Parts: sequence; C-alpha cells; structure tokens
Amino acid sequence: MRKILVIGSGKSASYLIKYLLDKSEKENLHIIVGDINTSNANKLIDGHKNANAISLDVFDKSSREQAVQNADIVVSMLPARFHIEVAKDCINYGKNMVTASYVSEEMQELNPAATEKGLVFMNEIGVDPGIDHMSAMQVIDRIRDQGGKMILFESFTGGLVAPESDNNLWNYKFTWNPRNVVLAGQGSAAKFLQESSYKYIPYNRLFRRTEFLEIDGFGRFEAYANRDSLKYQSVYGLDHVETLYRGTMRRVGFSRAWNIFVLLGMTDDSYTIDDSENMSYRDFVNAFLPYSPTDSVELKFRHALKIDQDDIVWDKLEELDIFSKTKMVEIKKATPAQILQKILMDSWTLDETDKDMIVMYHKFGYELNGKRHQIDATMVTIGEDQTYTAMAKTVGLPVAIATMDILNGKISTPGVQIPIRREVYEPILEELKEYGIQFTEKEVPYLGYNPLNA
Amino acid sequence: MRKILVIGSGKSASYLIKYLLDKSEKENLHIIVGDINTSNANKLIDGHKNANAISLDVFDKSSREQAVQNADIVVSMLPARFHIEVAKDCINYGKNMVTASYVSEEMQELNPAATEKGLVFMNEIGVDPGIDHMSAMQVIDRIRDQGGKMILFESFTGGLVAPESDNNLWNYKFTWNPRNVVLAGQGSAAKFLQESSYKYIPYNRLFRRTEFLEIDGFGRFEAYANRDSLKYQSVYGLDHVETLYRGTMRRVGFSRAWNIFVLLGMTDDSYTIDDSENMSYRDFVNAFLPYSPTDSVELKFRHALKIDQDDIVWDKLEELDIFSKTKMVEIKKATPAQILQKILMDSWTLDETDKDMIVMYHKFGYELNGKRHQIDATMVTIGEDQTYTAMAKTVGLPVAIATMDILNGKISTPGVQIPIRREVYEPILEELKEYGIQFTEKEVPYLGYNPLNA
Repeated sequence: MRKILVIGSGKSASYLIKYLLDKSEKENLHIIVGDINTSNANKLIDGHKNANAISLDVFDKSSREQAVQNADIVVSMLPARFHIEVAKDCINYGKNMVTASYVSEEMQELNPAATEKGLVFMNEIGVDPGIDHMSAMQVIDRIRDQGGKMILFESFTGGLVAPESDNNLWNYKFTWNPRNVVLAGQGSAAKFLQESSYKYIPYNRLFRRTEFLEIDGFGRFEAYANRDSLKYQSVYGLDHVETLYRGTMRRVGFSRAWNIFVLLGMTDDSYTIDDSENMSYRDFVNAFLPYSPTDSVELKFRHALKIDQDDIVWDKLEELDIFSKTKMVEIKKATPAQILQKILMDSWTLDETDKDMIVMYHKFGYELNGKRHQIDATMVTIGEDQTYTAMAKTVGLPVAIATMDILNGKISTPGVQIPIRREVYEPILEELKEYGIQFTEKEVPYLGYNPLNA
Repeated sequence: MRKILVIGSGKSASYLIKYLLDKSEKENLHIIVGDINTSNANKLIDGHKNANAISLDVFDKSSREQAVQNADIVVSMLPARFHIEVAKDCINYGKNMVTASYVSEEMQELNPAATEKGLVFMNEIGVDPGIDHMSAMQVIDRIRDQGGKMILFESFTGGLVAPESDNNLWNYKFTWNPRNVVLAGQGSAAKFLQESSYKYIPYNRLFRRTEFLEIDGFGRFEAYANRDSLKYQSVYGLDHVETLYRGTMRRVGFSRAWNIFVLLGMTDDSYTIDDSENMSYRDFVNAFLPYSPTDSVELKFRHALKIDQDDIVWDKLEELDIFSKTKMVEIKKATPAQILQKILMDSWTLDETDKDMIVMYHKFGYELNGKRHQIDATMVTIGEDQTYTAMAKTVGLPVAIATMDILNGKISTPGVQIPIRREVYEPILEELKEYGIQFTEKEVPYLGYNPLNA
C-alpha cells in the first residue's frame, strides 16, 4: 500500500479525501488523515477500509516527524502559516509535498534542498491560486505556440452563492473565511496595468471602480481589483503586455453597497471600539456618525453617505438589520471589522440546504499576424451541499489529482513550484473535466480598454 | 556667568535665542548654541558677546557629554527622536532640561532618575503642545476653583498664513513641515467624545466632518479632528466630561478640497509609484484615474470625484497646476505623498515677504450652581518675517521663559513633566502677554453638540 498523509480535515478536505478513497483500491492507496481533532476526519473517512484518522498536532515535533516518515507523500491542507515545519520534515525524510497555499518566503527557501533531493513541492494548486494558474497558462502557451504575442491578460475569480440559493439583496453569502471578505482590499493601493499605464486605486475607491463581466447562462457579475495584479507577471511570461488586471467577482451591485461600510470605517481592523460588548448594532453604526439629540441614526446615515430614499443600497443595509436597537454586539474589545463580521454572519451564513458557486473569468488579448484577437474563458462550478461545496471541489480535486500524478511519476520535475508547466497542468485540467470543472472559451473582438480598438 | 546650552538652531530657535540674548546682560547668561552646522546659529547670535556657536553632533558621545557637562541648563530644539541621549547625559551630570517635544516613552522612563536627582525635565512647552496645555489648564483650574464641573473641552490649533499674505485660493501655505501636512490624519480612525458617546472618523471622511469656528477680527475657520482627542483626558482631569475634541484649524474650504487628494489616494506614503521620476504632474494625477484613449484627465477627474464645472474646488486644483504636462515630478521611487508634497511646495511655499499666523481656539463647557456655562478663549499670533515667524515665537518664547524660570528656581518641582501645573503656567502665560501672546475670553451660551441645550 502506498501511504498518503493528509494533514488537516477542514472545509476544503472533503473532495480531496473522497477522490483518494475512490482511487484507493485501484491505486493501492492507504490514506492517513491527521488532524488535531479527528472528528471531522472520521466523518469524511466514514469507515473506509483504506483509510484511518490520526490525532496530529503539527507543533508536536516527534509525532509530526513520525507521521511524515511513515508516508509516501504528504498533503498539507492546513492554513499556510503551518506548512513550514511539515515541509522541513519532508526535506529531511525525502517525501514529496502538496499544498494549495501561496508559496511563502520560507517555503521558497527550501527550493535548493528539494531540488537537490529530487522532491516535488507543489503549491498553489487549489482554485485561486491553482485552477487560475493552470487554465491561464494553458491558453497562454497555446497562443504562443501559434506565434501569437500576448498583449492583455485579465483574470477574475469569485466564491459566491449558487443561483438557486441566491435569495438576499446582496446576492452574496459567506462561502469561505468571512474575515477575509471583511478585510479584502485593505493595505496599500491596488495596482494594475491598463494599456501600458500603471494605475493605482486606494481602498476608499476600490469598490467604486469595478468592471462588468457576463457569463452565458449565469448573467452579469462585477469585479474589483486585487491588491497586486502584477504578482505573476514575470512568472506567466507577461512582461511586455499592455494590460494586466486581476480581480474578485461579485454579483452586480455588491461593491457599491459594500463601499458604504468602507467609507464609514466599519471594515477597520486596526483599533478597538470602546465598550463594544454592550453596544447594539445601532450603537455601532452611530459611532461612525455625528452626535445628534434629535436626528435619527437612519437620517444621519443617509445624509452622510448621500443615499436617496429610493436607493436599493438602503434596502440592502436594512436587510442586514444594522439599525437594530435590540441585536447586541456582545464581543469585548472588538474592532469595527470584527463587529461588522458578526452582523454580516447573521444574514450571510449559508443555510443547510444552500449551495455555493465558484466562478472564474479570464480574458486573453493577443496579436497574431498583425491582428489583435481576444479569447474569453469562463468556468462555473456549483456545490452539491455544505460538505461537498464548490469551494472544496475546486480546491480539493486539483490537490488530489496532483498528489496522484506525483505519486505515479507523471509530475517529476523537482523543486518548490506552482502549476504553470504543461507537464503539470495538462493532465490535471484534462482530469478535472471528468468532474465538470471545465472552461468555456469564446473568441471575441479584441477590446482592451480602448474603444478605438473596436 | 550662567551657561545655557541650546542644541539645534533650526526654524524654531530664532525667538528663543533672541529672548535669551536680550536677557543675558541682566541675568548674567552665556548662551552656547550647538548645531551640526553652525551657520544658522552664528546668524542668530549675530556676534553677541554673551553667546557663541559650537559645532555639535549629538551622536558624538564625547563632544555631547562635554557640552552638557559645561552647561547649567540644556535646551534641546532638535527633532524629538534626538533628545534621548542628551537627556541621559543631563541625568548623569545633573542638569535641568527643556524641550518643546511630546514626551516619548524613553523620556518618561527617565522620570524616577530625574526626580531622585531633583532635576526638572520640562517637555511639551512650545505652542502645540505647550501654550495649548498652559492656556487650557489655567481656565480649567479657575473653573474648578469656583466650584464648577467641567463637561466639555474642545481645543483647536492651526499654523496658517497671515491675512496680509493670504493670497491663494486654499488660504494656506506651508509654515511648518510640509510632510506632516500631507500625512496628517493617516493611520487609525480619529476618535473623540461627543455628548458622552465615543465617535470614530476614518481617514477617508476626516476632512468632510469639520467644525466651524469664528475668531473676532479674523473671520471663520474650520477644524478637522486630531487622531486621538482623548490623549490628555486624564492628565487634564477631564475623565467625566461629556465632550472632548481636539482638532486642527484651517481656513473654511481647505478640507473639502484636500479631501479630493485623500480620496484619489495621493496622500498615500506606503508604496512607490513606478517610473515616478519621468512623470509629469498630469501623469501622476492620471495614475489614479481609469485609462481612456479619448477622455481628458480633467474630465475623468471631474467625473470620478463628481466635481461640478462651477465648483470652487476645481479652481483650487487648477491653481496648483496639477494638470500640467510640462512640470515634472523628477523624484525617483517616490511615494504618492512625496509627489503631492512637491506639487504643493511649488504653490504653498512662503514668499520672502510672507508672514505666518498661529491660531488657537479653546471651548470650556462647565456646570456651576446647576447651570451650564461656556467660555471660548482664542489666541492669534502673527509672525514678523520669515526668521521671526509666529511659529518660532509661540514655540520659542515658552521654551525660553521656562528655561529662565527653571534657572532662577521659580519652577522647581523635579521630574519629567509637561506644563500643566500652576507653578509653571502662571508665570509663563503672564510673561507671554508682554510679547503679545494672549488669549481673549468670551462667555457664550453653553451649546455642546445638543441644540436642545440652547
């Protein structure tokens, strides 16, 4: 039996473990799921004979080392900051490793050692990062093979609620870490490249400079810019493109309403609110508005943000019950962001029967034989339920397939890497199609940001 | 002769040195002005027989120690971060010390040693901090002596251009460190207390929630909130007030126009702009606006910020020439804030004949015999020229007077301190009147923020 150690059995592990269990007979696998708490691991394994759960604390050196030593390959589904000790063990004991996380500096520093030992350390092989890299590089490589020259690349991803479960005015529910949603876009200005000009958007305007996107059968979306659209410019070989933009997708209208929270200061995570535990939601809102003994919080709010009485934004705010006098914050020394998160979780937590949805949209602009062309590629995946979510599927399946491909020697180039080489993305994207994860490509007129191109 | 060592001969040293020279004969003083470059020191001394300039690098231990050892009292007019080594020498050699800077943690840690040795370490004795502390505490103590209970304290200070030199649309010129003006208000939300409620204003709204103030003979001003209005709440004994607000004064209309820069992201100091050295001012502005091959930077700007064609804000922007295609940034790897500062310095640098102005406005609300009262106190000081500025006068004179009072034993309570005790502020405020630095008090109806009080 070939032993696969999966560390972490959280939200994104369901499809990963299911995939490996389904292959275990044919592929002669034994799956060991290690977690500090084995209850979810046991639920996912569900008594399968080719698997077992072990209690594993990654901060306990000896049990961690023993588990790694005992495996043929290690998959870490832990949060990114917990990978490094596991990775060092993999170097020491000569094990290949797979994660869906961004390559940290510490991870990158292991590259010489991994390469020397002939080990594959595959990272960023979930959905975003992961499927975005693979699907983008497949088209970019094809365009180059044909002799085309890339001039534009835009890439958008969104974790949203499925249309059949989309029943609030924001067209949004939390399908992943709510805290990341509340803090999204904070820090330095968003930076991107538009028709050869660098452009910068500060946080207070980020959600007001969105782009519209349409996916056949799924309607319209909008996207706001990610912090650093240029992160993979060199890695993708796009040093000479005119436009490079990466963004996050939402349903149209989300960002304009979200911006209200940004402008009021409710997404700030840098200080705590006095006496937060005894505040009502209304008190919290009022802390960002001027004092008045007579005017209502509602009117002060409308006036401060210039919201007309018939603006749909207002209905979105009321739907969240942010003006409630009876709902209490009940968190001590809370930051504005923590309080806002609590308020939103009241409304945006998935119901038991709700399904999530992952959407991805790439635009590839290129020049071929003196003419400009554009390919738009889109992907939509909808979850089955709240265990087998679209998020778990699009994160877990690429991880699982990569794990098998490494185990079977299909992926063999050693080193700390991300899935941008053909050897890696071709078989994985091909197999993902069997699971319904597939891009639809369309040739469209090249537009870029210049209407004169039309 | 009693020897006074003044370290630093920058902008704020002119009045300080003049005051000490004028007293030197009668008070039997010799003034030693130490600076790393003695040219300005020699200019200020102007051959006076009771003074000399010495070349002094505060990072050179032996020469610094020698200078301190040789003095009877030490005045440091260096930037705050340079005080600490001098302060430690003062402890070692048993010298009193005076600075106009905020008490740093390191300085505060010297309190036990200073107290034990019987040394006075007087800090925050310039204008803001300095005259604000003294003038506020004088009125607060008087109200308390009468049996009054403080319920409101608001305090506003501004460094502005004098009316006779006020000839641009912003009614503003740089009279102090331009960098501080560009970065003002950044970081955590501004926090203050309004009618017993804590209120928070994020940076993107700070310049849109101003208060209006009027000073007889000088017209209207506006003020935006300082970062932490509650800093001196306990120190002033104001733990039970209903309203506590500290702000920065500008002429009316400045903040609304300044907010344009904030919203566009031009005051950001956290990242550098690509190829900044080769940008025109227009290119810089355009980096914060969407790409368009046809629309002008001007129209994109008006549209993004919703500026009507007849809005005076537009004239203010044009006055700064920010849309110039020929004026170049010429700074390598510049942050947006550095570039904005350069653009503003083109327009807001004082002319040779320009004069500056310091304005201060305090509101004291209190309850006495069951009734609510309010006292408004205002102070305006106008500079003489560009050496003897209002800033140098209001910073340097309190420092100088405190230095003499310590030397003459009038101020004798030892320890690291700020000027909030009667022993300190009474003689200093009294003497400042001789130099025209004087508050005008007015009894006004108590208003607070509650119109129902009227």
